[in-house]
Amino acid sequence: MRVVVALGGNALLKRGEPLTAENQRRNVAIAARALAPLAHDYQLVISHGNGPQVGLLSLQSAAYDEVEEYPLDILGAQTEGMIGYMIEQELGNLLPIEEPLAAILTMVEVAPDDPAFGNPTKPIGPVYSEEEAKRLAEERGWSIAPDGEHWRRVVASPEPQRIFEMRPIHWLLENGATVICAGGGGIPTAYKPDGTLEGVEVVIDKDRASALLAFELDAGLLILATDTDGVYLNWGTEQARRIERTTPEQMDQHEFEEGSMGPKVEAACDFVRRSGGRAVIGSLSDMQGMVDGTAGTQFVLE
Amino acid sequence: MRVVVALGGNALLKRGEPLTAENQRRNVAIAARALAPLAHDYQLVISHGNGPQVGLLSLQSAAYDEVEEYPLDILGAQTEGMIGYMIEQELGNLLPIEEPLAAILTMVEVAPDDPAFGNPTKPIGPVYSEEEAKRLAEERGWSIAPDGEHWRRVVASPEPQRIFEMRPIHWLLENGATVICAGGGGIPTAYKPDGTLEGVEVVIDKDRASALLAFELDAGLLILATDTDGVYLNWGTEQARRIERTTPEQMDQHEFEEGSMGPKVEAACDFVRRSGGRAVIGSLSDMQGMVDGTAGTQFVLE
Repeated sequence: MRVVVALGGNALLKRGEPLTAENQRRNVAIAARALAPLAHDYQLVISHGNGPQVGLLSLQSAAYDEVEEYPLDILGAQTEGMIGYMIEQELGNLLPIEEPLAAILTMVEVAPDDPAFGNPTKPIGPVYSEEEAKRLAEERGWSIAPDGEHWRRVVASPEPQRIFEMRPIHWLLENGATVICAGGGGIPTAYKPDGTLEGVEVVIDKDRASALLAFELDAGLLILATDTDGVYLNWGTEQARRIERTTPEQMDQHEFEEGSMGPKVEAACDFVRRSGGRAVIGSLSDMQGMVDGTAGTQFVLE
Repeated sequence: MRVVVALGGNALLKRGEPLTAENQRRNVAIAARALAPLAHDYQLVISHGNGPQVGLLSLQSAAYDEVEEYPLDILGAQTEGMIGYMIEQELGNLLPIEEPLAAILTMVEVAPDDPAFGNPTKPIGPVYSEEEAKRLAEERGWSIAPDGEHWRRVVASPEPQRIFEMRPIHWLLENGATVICAGGGGIPTAYKPDGTLEGVEVVIDKDRASALLAFELDAGLLILATDTDGVYLNWGTEQARRIERTTPEQMDQHEFEEGSMGPKVEAACDFVRRSGGRAVIGSLSDMQGMVDGTAGTQFVLE
């Protein structure tokens, strides 16, 4: 069976931790321990978020004033390099040398007329106080939005339409490699009227891109790993209750937070509807339970 | 036939140009036009330098003071993402959609006791005046060295011993993909005494890594593309003369500039000696001539 695991930004960096190389590496090593058994048992594909990282690289790029800031497609490509490398190295350290790993850069197409371009929802970079976020929005022309108790920069997040590297990803899987790809939702690109492809200044949601990836790969299972143990109804209230098992049809009756659980639920439902496979949202620390169907929120067709 | 082309930093950015996204993309597009015919005729593998880019990312990382500067292995991985993406996209724009491309992250092993660790020779980042370079060396603990009329930061550049992703690279080539890999000489790694792999703070020479790659792939031709039309004897004097055709044995009698033509000549000779294949050093703008044997400096066994 093919399994696609999407590692959430919050699975790669604990909330509130500074985004140092050391902190990232420690969290990637934890994720690698959860993933290593799957690499052995399944055709495993790993994708990952990049919200905190692409935001940091944007701040670093802006802080050095002798070269103008790099656009989000190039920064996204940098994060695929950085995070993909750490996952490959840490997972490789847990697997026998005979088990091959490959991290492949992934470009994803979006539609230039996607309405998301006019409605930024995807949080990137660090959290700020409301006051500081509003000052930065003014200074740098950012869009900002609340994220829990804090505020963050938000950017447009159009729908992923196509993953360009599907054939290479297939070939690697067929030869037994664990493949790391579609990092940060893929490097965002769109066709110009002249038919050439160019980068665009957005960040694609990695759960949506992972759902597309899992569908294209005919995966039997899509796991969206985060830092909470599933999807909750009445989140933040005394009636909060984790959903153990659900269907896309049941989930249509509820609304979830945009920029957080919303896109995850939507991605899980989309994958289950299109493929008939199973999707799970849950905690990285419950990986085996999510695979076995005993942990997280399990999404099935009926 | 398999052909490995290593794109020099100077082939990707004209000397003196600021390292903006736009300038890099324009130069990558020029390189892509030179490479597109080869992608059609041969099993093509493309590697690239990252000296200017890894230096810039280091300066950007240092300029943002809320997170400590990232180490050179992580910055190297970022450059594989950034430059690999631009090459894939620009080359993809010139090829029919049926011709697959894949950019794969590449980790390269170095020996922890390589004497190069004590003798930094590899220039990275921008050029400085002697005075500014000496000030920065003092402030940041950099090693610095002259580079032509200017000065630059230099870092250790140990010998590449092993490319970890050889099997995935083979599988991609066998399926007809043009492969972009070993960018920046590969992400530098070394084994710790406990047997796990970790990143190291060096930059591997991309010509040496490309020679190893070409040997491992059993390539018939290794092209080291730069911004000069070949290797010169008596460079910088009135007696300057381009070498048209040579052998490793003949080249043993000459010395070339460390950190510049020296490693290229050494890489070309090593490849020819080990493989019996052909190597060429020359200008990106003479690509077809280099392949045909009529341009650049051609290295053959005898």
